[in-house]
Amino acid sequence: MAIDISERLEKQLAFIRELDKLKSVKRRTYLLDSSRTENSAEHSWQVALMAILLIEHADADGIDPFRVVKMLLIHDVVEIEAGDTYIYDERAVAGQAKRETRASEKLFGLLPGDQRDELLSLWREFEEGVTPAARFAKSIDRFQPLYHNFLTSGKAWLEHGIDAARVRANVEARIGDGSAELGELAGGLIDEAAVRGYLAG
Amino acid sequence: MAIDISERLEKQLAFIRELDKLKSVKRRTYLLDSSRTENSAEHSWQVALMAILLIEHADADGIDPFRVVKMLLIHDVVEIEAGDTYIYDERAVAGQAKRETRASEKLFGLLPGDQRDELLSLWREFEEGVTPAARFAKSIDRFQPLYHNFLTSGKAWLEHGIDAARVRANVEARIGDGSAELGELAGGLIDEAAVRGYLAG
Repeated sequence: MAIDISERLEKQLAFIRELDKLKSVKRRTYLLDSSRTENSAEHSWQVALMAILLIEHADADGIDPFRVVKMLLIHDVVEIEAGDTYIYDERAVAGQAKRETRASEKLFGLLPGDQRDELLSLWREFEEGVTPAARFAKSIDRFQPLYHNFLTSGKAWLEHGIDAARVRANVEARIGDGSAELGELAGGLIDEAAVRGYLAG
Repeated sequence: MAIDISERLEKQLAFIRELDKLKSVKRRTYLLDSSRTENSAEHSWQVALMAILLIEHADADGIDPFRVVKMLLIHDVVEIEAGDTYIYDERAVAGQAKRETRASEKLFGLLPGDQRDELLSLWREFEEGVTPAARFAKSIDRFQPLYHNFLTSGKAWLEHGIDAARVRANVEARIGDGSAELGELAGGLIDEAAVRGYLAG
């Protein structure tokens, strides 16, 4: 192309062009109108905005909300290379960490060095889930599909044969790890879902 | 529902449930693989992340990047009520402000008062486009579809009969208003698009 831009801007744009592919990575979670499953880009938007609105329910004080938002905006971009891993697919989960680590280096490596380092570090912090910001970000990331499943009468749970025990083991504890209040709500939703037949028997 | 949650959390969740509808609001911009047009939720994710990566190219110093990100995460939610308005559809643009103001009050009014006020104020700041943060946010919001149009060989421009003069009048100046560097890039892309036949004659 005849257009003259700096090497730095070209690297940023190369990463931005790659990001577009996240709109084509499908998740198992349905939209609330059940018309289709969502993709990872729109999911990332939703959880970023949810984190801003719900941060007062985080257990830890003094969490930097922008750090949480940045984590949630990038937490799924490795799926562009590695694909979405359904948390109830045990075989896929087994190889997930290795696949995603490789993907993170390749993808964030498109950026200028300082931005690559910042985003890689945020992505790793989210994955490790140890800091208060990462724990709250993970709470939100787990709460959103649970809530959608409940509100769509368990559509994805029933399609994939997921029972209450698996939801409790995989989701409830992780939600409660960053927010006791959201964890309690999640527990109540799972109880109610079981009563209403939204979960596999 | 038998689940007992605070009135405040219930209001926040009511807003969050409504947000999901933004995933069904279609824009004219195509994905880079041209497979379909994008929706406003995934667009909002992309521009929020672009703003984080490109903020060094803003003309003004000291812009709060989190403010820009919050604006971009919510800038389109009024479309849930008011629909997406194509910037080249002059009849629709004429009634847009009134429709969207009504929609903003209805939608953000679902939230607890303090959060309603904060988001309404951010949304208005973006719409007015006067502060440095809003001007940069608008640059990014206009640059993304221009860039996608260029990279998809003008697919949406040609489908809607948009010529270079209209793109220059509607887009180039607004991009340059928040970032001279991105405005210059936009100008170069439009020149090149005209040469390559990506724009209507």
